[in-house]
Amino acid sequence: MLIHTHTRLIEWSDCDPAGIVFHPRYLAYFDHGTNLLFAKAGFDLATLQTRFEVIGYPVVDLRSRFLAPCRYGDEARIETRIAEFRHSSFDVQHVLHRGDAVAVEARVTRVWAGRHPEDPRRMQGRPVPQEVRAALSRH
Amino acid sequence: MLIHTHTRLIEWSDCDPAGIVFHPRYLAYFDHGTNLLFAKAGFDLATLQTRFEVIGYPVVDLRSRFLAPCRYGDEARIETRIAEFRHSSFDVQHVLHRGDAVAVEARVTRVWAGRHPEDPRRMQGRPVPQEVRAALSRH
Amino acid sequence: MLIHTHTRLIEWSDCDPAGIVFHPRYLAYFDHGTNLLFAKAGFDLATLQTRFEVIGYPVVDLRSRFLAPCRYGDEARIETRIAEFRHSSFDVQHVLHRGDAVAVEARVTRVWAGRHPEDPRRMQGRPVPQEVRAALSRH
Amino acid sequence: MLIHTHTRLIEWSDCDPAGIVFHPRYLAYFDHGTNLLFAKAGFDLATLQTRFEVIGYPVVDLRSRFLAPCRYGDEARIETRIAEFRHSSFDVQHVLHRGDAVAVEARVTRVWAGRHPEDPRRMQGRPVPQEVRAALSRH
Repeated sequence: MLIHTHTRLIEWSDCDPAGIVFHPRYLAYFDHGTNLLFAKAGFDLATLQTRFEVIGYPVVDLRSRFLAPCRYGDEARIETRIAEFRHSSFDVQHVLHRGDAVAVEARVTRVWAGRHPEDPRRMQGRPVPQEVRAALSRH
Repeated sequence: MLIHTHTRLIEWSDCDPAGIVFHPRYLAYFDHGTNLLFAKAGFDLATLQTRFEVIGYPVVDLRSRFLAPCRYGDEARIETRIAEFRHSSFDVQHVLHRGDAVAVEARVTRVWAGRHPEDPRRMQGRPVPQEVRAALSRH
Repeated sequence: MLIHTHTRLIEWSDCDPAGIVFHPRYLAYFDHGTNLLFAKAGFDLATLQTRFEVIGYPVVDLRSRFLAPCRYGDEARIETRIAEFRHSSFDVQHVLHRGDAVAVEARVTRVWAGRHPEDPRRMQGRPVPQEVRAALSRH
Repeated sequence: MLIHTHTRLIEWSDCDPAGIVFHPRYLAYFDHGTNLLFAKAGFDLATLQTRFEVIGYPVVDLRSRFLAPCRYGDEARIETRIAEFRHSSFDVQHVLHRGDAVAVEARVTRVWAGRHPEDPRRMQGRPVPQEVRAALSRH
């Protein structure tokens, strides 16, 4: 699978009064990692919305483990890749490293979603296009 | 002028490693206070968008003073009122109290904005409707 | 088990360009719900830190499902209770309702953590005190 | 004055349902820029706290103007420099560019703060050390 790796400096505003990253922030980092992975494959969100009439790929399920805390000033390295494609959903695997250690990992299930034909405020799963699968599955 | 007052408990995630509210959070509180003030006057955002073809009232200028820090568990009381209406913009005055003391105050200039007729991604100032002025100016 | 229920209005800043709550925000709501549950049981964080020499109860594992989106202006009702106590950790169950529907649910594992005796920056699991268990287990 | 410039990609979670950056986020960017500027001058926060017995440089006043909106995927270039030193406070000037245009600017007053000798939860202004002034004033 295609892997996207980026580093980010932990910011002051990411941390709580215990001096460590407030755990939901990691999930925001991973959300950004997912967007960067798709952009690397040639499918940034604007492209997806224009070419495939999807709204996006909202999260429906996630599991995350927090193994070691990160603090202000730490440099985090985040790896993101697709773990599995299904008909109209897929799982994204995220691993956040601080130095040599794995600090956080998550597996996030997202749905390939378009607007519901009868109610534009509702979303509806759609088959993940073959070219999207192919671009994200290459090495 | 119509005044909206609400209290909010300072949350753990509002605070930084110094143990105090991260200052941009106060501006998010005030943004929410503005929406609550308009809703109290009968003009929640959905109503505004439907009735007046505006996008909203984006911030173009703000001045804020931070007089005393708030911490996790503090109860903040936030007063919001219009300070001044102009043709297509207005100033909102916010005061945040912690106990008897004023902890934060801000004056925020917002524009009454519709879509630009030639470019839907751009915004354009519009005259503030008379009935909106009247509803927010009552006592 | 003791249950804490609170409602919160979805704020503009909780929502993303798709117009729905950005999913990590729900986990911040649940974090706040956990603090409110402990406070209701008589153990706000300041009390915990003073009486039990713990730092807090950091998250080590979580699982969350997002069943229906919430939008700006929606009123969310959040129920929080302890699902299970173990020796030095516990699981918190969170259910967020929008109207009659369950919109989000999560099960979050937290560790009862004190400072490591040899390195004040590291944390170490401690047995959950009996009186904390008792207060949170009552009906 | 020493200038720190960094670029950052606008993230999905920085933006609101109007599709533009939620204005308090810019102030979080600028807070980060201030920390990066001090680090560039050789005074990251840990160094400051160890060497000068200060807590940090909390914000007491700010003025910001929002000239053009940024959106998800935009690249912002942020310039940060000290505008003025006073006895125990200083002003930081921030300019955020999107392409060739200035999108946001701010002037933020911060206090050089240590712990109050009689109440460790209160802060007290201290003279800005000469070597800090010198390092931030070089070209």
